[in-house]
Amino acid sequence: MTTTVITNIGSLVTNDPDLGDGPLGLVADAALVLDGDRIAWAGPAAGAPAADTAVDAGGRAVVPGFVDSHSHLVFAGDRTAEFNARMSGRAYEAGGIRTTVAATRAATDAELEANLVRHLREALRQGTTTFETKSGYGLTVEDEARALRIAAAHTDEVTYLGAHIVSPDLADDPAAYVDLVTGPMLDACAPHARWIDVFCEKGAFDGDQARAILTAGKARGLHPRVHANQLSYGPGVRLAVELDAASADHCTHLTDADVDALASGNTVATLLPGAEFSTRAAWPDARRLLDAGVTVALSTDCNPGSSYTSSVPFCIALAVRDMGMTPDEALWSATAGGAAALRRTDIGRLAPGARADLALLDAPSHVHLAYRPGVPLVTEVWRAGTRAA
Amino acid sequence: MTTTVITNIGSLVTNDPDLGDGPLGLVADAALVLDGDRIAWAGPAAGAPAADTAVDAGGRAVVPGFVDSHSHLVFAGDRTAEFNARMSGRAYEAGGIRTTVAATRAATDAELEANLVRHLREALRQGTTTFETKSGYGLTVEDEARALRIAAAHTDEVTYLGAHIVSPDLADDPAAYVDLVTGPMLDACAPHARWIDVFCEKGAFDGDQARAILTAGKARGLHPRVHANQLSYGPGVRLAVELDAASADHCTHLTDADVDALASGNTVATLLPGAEFSTRAAWPDARRLLDAGVTVALSTDCNPGSSYTSSVPFCIALAVRDMGMTPDEALWSATAGGAAALRRTDIGRLAPGARADLALLDAPSHVHLAYRPGVPLVTEVWRAGTRAA
Ligand SMILES: [Zn+2]
Ligand SMILES: [Zn+2]
Repeated sequence: MTTTVITNIGSLVTNDPDLGDGPLGLVADAALVLDGDRIAWAGPAAGAPAADTAVDAGGRAVVPGFVDSHSHLVFAGDRTAEFNARMSGRAYEAGGIRTTVAATRAATDAELEANLVRHLREALRQGTTTFETKSGYGLTVEDEARALRIAAAHTDEVTYLGAHIVSPDLADDPAAYVDLVTGPMLDACAPHARWIDVFCEKGAFDGDQARAILTAGKARGLHPRVHANQLSYGPGVRLAVELDAASADHCTHLTDADVDALASGNTVATLLPGAEFSTRAAWPDARRLLDAGVTVALSTDCNPGSSYTSSVPFCIALAVRDMGMTPDEALWSATAGGAAALRRTDIGRLAPGARADLALLDAPSHVHLAYRPGVPLVTEVWRAGTRAA
Repeated sequence: MTTTVITNIGSLVTNDPDLGDGPLGLVADAALVLDGDRIAWAGPAAGAPAADTAVDAGGRAVVPGFVDSHSHLVFAGDRTAEFNARMSGRAYEAGGIRTTVAATRAATDAELEANLVRHLREALRQGTTTFETKSGYGLTVEDEARALRIAAAHTDEVTYLGAHIVSPDLADDPAAYVDLVTGPMLDACAPHARWIDVFCEKGAFDGDQARAILTAGKARGLHPRVHANQLSYGPGVRLAVELDAASADHCTHLTDADVDALASGNTVATLLPGAEFSTRAAWPDARRLLDAGVTVALSTDCNPGSSYTSSVPFCIALAVRDMGMTPDEALWSATAGGAAALRRTDIGRLAPGARADLALLDAPSHVHLAYRPGVPLVTEVWRAGTRAA
């Protein structure tokens, strides 16, 4: 195995408090040694062991690759006209998710995969080295299964979201759709997914339906995650904790009981500020969650309807400006927090044994991700020990 | 002179209503012919004349290069610690502009120029083909003049802002500082600048001082622009209109009389949402200005204190989300609007005779600049007919 030392790192975020200062385990004037696809050593440059090859970071900051634990990237078409009308105050017969369902069903496998790959490359260039992605724009047995097959060729973190909305084909019989999602669709999808998700919201699936869907998924070896409490108060977050979901996602409208449940359980709160940005909605209160001791992740929710951003740095800047997170907390949530939301310990940190997934910033510090909003600061990305962008 | 045709443009913004649809003069399936540093022809691809060489835009959208008519890029140091403390709710002895003044005075000419060039390249990669930049971190005769000399080597749009704050050297005698700014400092600076600017605000310069400074500048052939009504209501905007300033910048706190003055005069309102974003301030109301018939420009205010973004696309996304602009209006303001704020007609549009400054987007439409916030969509930039990034 070839070893590589990255020297002259102005500031290194390890996310390992044993390796440096504070929760980020921050090391100034640092070096990092990679052995194959893993981190072999991290610490002050002065103490770095020798390696086969050396790379000069030129004083740039290095952070763990971003872990985007929530995206919807198996889709076709876009919703430019709908977005433009909404932002221009013009009336528009918005089809919403159904518009994307129709376009996705009509697309070939090759078209769906090319679109997925295009978005993954775009995310990678912006520092995302792990991404979760979901089905949910097929809503038939065949279309959901093919979405998951296509996704599984590109990531291990694949989520079955047949319960995104009630399929337009069964709009008048939601119970029948739940039977489909927990029956033949689950049979077809379970082999291709790690996770099962449900949009628990008025107009989508209520608490009882969500419980039935997630429980059926668990029985087939899928682990739950939940779209919860995005548009209104509801049972989603407490259900997520009750079922030991890895993550409750959105968490925009929370009662004290919801916050208490998250604090006492093992479920990460994943905040998705791109959605609030793109729909002009009120922000989730990250400060309240952090102060209660909840583990918070930060992700993009990248999808063509409500949050068409693939930029984790953009989400960090929003979280700092509008959700009460410090720059340090936002960085942690976009890396180690995302890993926790996927129940992973091999990613989201740059400590010996972890996967060598990292981003070099054209900046002396990770704080610049919030301090310099909108500026593409990620200049180089390594994934599994290889230069990837 | 070599001619180049750019073919297969998915969507072209010309900003010439005679060439296409609406105020943006939008052309679908377009082509653009460049002759040397100028646009020779723009219109539907089917009608494009032949040219010496052809470039395939691959269906991407093409927009005029952004005109960033307000930045502060001759500086040294950064203010990461101050930003981090502010966003983390920690006490910090903030030196504000004075911190940057001290660092800028201590820097060598070469350091200042290298920092300027680094930021200009960063802006260029994001589609900015024209930028204005200011002095204002020297505040001595020598330091202001050298800032302008350095800036003038890189842009025609150089602004003398000796009246940024009262120099710390004369903090107890603001009248003496105004005398300096309108006397020896003006003598030293006028040869290197096109514009004169003043920060008309409580704690900086009041209406009478601003009038004296701008009037002195006009007498020396400098044309006025004004930092006006950013932090509070005040006389800045009306003074700008009275003195026929090219632009009143910020315009965050406006009375009806201010809006009426802008609507009746020849002064552009330049909005700088990066400042409100980075200081968590209330947004300027672009909708109110547009509805009153005011010409609105959109710029970055890039500076290391209150708005350390060089990204015009980011400002467009904010303007659409939070300032009531439509995606079309925001694009116009960031291109033709910026040109108007610099009293230029040769830039900010892609019509025959205009300078061939343009950006290609990795998107089918300019709407994606707001629809896909934070994503670096600018993939190629041409300036004066040459591929520049
Ligand atoms: Zn989602
Ligand atoms: Zn300014």
